[in-house]
Amino acid sequence: MINSRRISKPIQIGDVTVGGGAPVVVQSMTKTDTRDSRATIEQIKELEQYGCELIRVAVPDEEAARAIVDIKNEIDIPLIADIHFDYRLALAALESGADGLRLNPGNIGEPAQIKQVALAAKERVVPIRIGLNAGSLPQTSNRQLTIAERMVEGALEQIQLLESLGFDLIKVSLKAFDVPTTIEAYQLIADRIPYPLHIGITEAGTPRTGVIRSTVGIGTLLWLGIGDTIRVSLTAPPREEVTAAYEILKSLNLRQRGPVLVSCPTCGRAETDVVKLAEAVEAELARINRPIKVAVMGCVVNGPGEAQDADVGIACGKGRGVIFKKGEMVGTVEEKDFFTALMKEVEGL
Amino acid sequence: MINSRRISKPIQIGDVTVGGGAPVVVQSMTKTDTRDSRATIEQIKELEQYGCELIRVAVPDEEAARAIVDIKNEIDIPLIADIHFDYRLALAALESGADGLRLNPGNIGEPAQIKQVALAAKERVVPIRIGLNAGSLPQTSNRQLTIAERMVEGALEQIQLLESLGFDLIKVSLKAFDVPTTIEAYQLIADRIPYPLHIGITEAGTPRTGVIRSTVGIGTLLWLGIGDTIRVSLTAPPREEVTAAYEILKSLNLRQRGPVLVSCPTCGRAETDVVKLAEAVEAELARINRPIKVAVMGCVVNGPGEAQDADVGIACGKGRGVIFKKGEMVGTVEEKDFFTALMKEVEGL
Repeated sequence: MINSRRISKPIQIGDVTVGGGAPVVVQSMTKTDTRDSRATIEQIKELEQYGCELIRVAVPDEEAARAIVDIKNEIDIPLIADIHFDYRLALAALESGADGLRLNPGNIGEPAQIKQVALAAKERVVPIRIGLNAGSLPQTSNRQLTIAERMVEGALEQIQLLESLGFDLIKVSLKAFDVPTTIEAYQLIADRIPYPLHIGITEAGTPRTGVIRSTVGIGTLLWLGIGDTIRVSLTAPPREEVTAAYEILKSLNLRQRGPVLVSCPTCGRAETDVVKLAEAVEAELARINRPIKVAVMGCVVNGPGEAQDADVGIACGKGRGVIFKKGEMVGTVEEKDFFTALMKEVEGL
Repeated sequence: MINSRRISKPIQIGDVTVGGGAPVVVQSMTKTDTRDSRATIEQIKELEQYGCELIRVAVPDEEAARAIVDIKNEIDIPLIADIHFDYRLALAALESGADGLRLNPGNIGEPAQIKQVALAAKERVVPIRIGLNAGSLPQTSNRQLTIAERMVEGALEQIQLLESLGFDLIKVSLKAFDVPTTIEAYQLIADRIPYPLHIGITEAGTPRTGVIRSTVGIGTLLWLGIGDTIRVSLTAPPREEVTAAYEILKSLNLRQRGPVLVSCPTCGRAETDVVKLAEAVEAELARINRPIKVAVMGCVVNGPGEAQDADVGIACGKGRGVIFKKGEMVGTVEEKDFFTALMKEVEGL
């Protein structure tokens, strides 16, 4: 059975609660040039439509940090500034109204500079995510440990640095490309710190293969009860990251969003083109936001039984199909009407 | 850490070992009309190219059972006949040389008929998969139990039926659309029987959403150490089931097949079209069978470090990119040459 969720110390990023038993939060990152605030706002508005709940933007320079003001004016979800190497960018992003920071204290400056950032973030009650990636482990780390152990060690150092400055609005991520390494790192740190965890697989790849790597890692961690917010990293438009995130959460019954399509894989028993019908239905369902369950089955014999908890469905036979609701047959239709008859029932729900 | 694998009692399906610590076997099912042996052979030959190791065909009638003779003559992987309702189809499939059967003894006939099938399978040393789906639970099952418990109860009855006939070349599957139910059912039965388990999520859906449901279920079970053979059920051409299966196994380092592409999700720091480049590289890598790791990274600063264990990679900057091998930079290239320079290095490996 799915493990009970690890209860972390909740933080607030704008009006979104991460951790402490709150629903797992879906986030993404813009792929536009942050300095191009128009393009960035447009991408974020699109992501909001898909259900994105937190957005991160890269802040590589002062101009990008200043652009946050305009971006924040136009968007409805909290914004997290992603900072590397320069504490001044963190200060500027806070100045511009960022709701969260992602930075590794050890790489943004000297102790006095780190302290300045921590104090400014604390004053504004803005959380910081410490995001340690396997690819950027400190050179000094103990090479006798496993990579997962070194990631945890590196993160704990960064955490202690913030804690020593009296800062505890912390969220942590430990990402690697290797899925077992990632899972192991999160399992290890889950027991050692009270903070919420942002989970994901780094550089996972394209929508074809990367989504599978991400799903194995994120899905397993969620099953183990670990994870307060997720990001599916894909080399693809960010809306695909958001839809994939919701599919993972829906499959574990952790979140609901929009319809679920049940469709059989078809086999030598199918007497109609189930693949084509399922694809058409899926495209149509993408416009619907209600959490309904729709089934497209290739055989009349098993169809209704195997999709008995669908709200509505069709079981296709030779030239004719049966429309069913909650496992009960409610009518038959001709093959040419399969799609329209099913969608009519969907709309009537 | 990934759980040590449950060691099951191995069975042989043709020359393929399932269980007993053997590598997790990838299987699929044809979507052609089995009676059309030409189309079925063609589909199976294609699946063999993608690495499919066991193939199942639907046997809805005598003609389909007879077609197995021709199909077996032309293919190189073992064939499993999928039977429902009629014990004579099971006998005919055995007669035609099927290497495995998938049937639920309770639904193919009377005790004397079931016995006839079990004896014929035993004589030929042909294993039987008992495949219980949540949608076809016996009416009589105890409704006070959870669905997962009822699935296990139903499977145990079927298993005992075969065992009582002295038959133990058994493999078991327990599939549901609901992912937590499926995982729970497999966890429950894993401790109660010695037989190998075929894992999957039923009616998972299309390549866009179904692959995620399947991956959460199969990935988590494999992480838990459960699963001897997998099928990813998708409403799609079966080659997509096979490639998805390998991606799951590769992501957990359980199997290797072909290249792995590491590619960053890109962000506001990227100064070139990483998505387009990654897609082009992925398409090209699909033709290569060697287990190499190739990286496409959107930024020169973190790229080589974050993909340090890639065999070869490119980190793209503004107008220029760096080619690296095993994390070491080996040359720079112009933007127009990103793709060709990278692929040249790949070929040179």
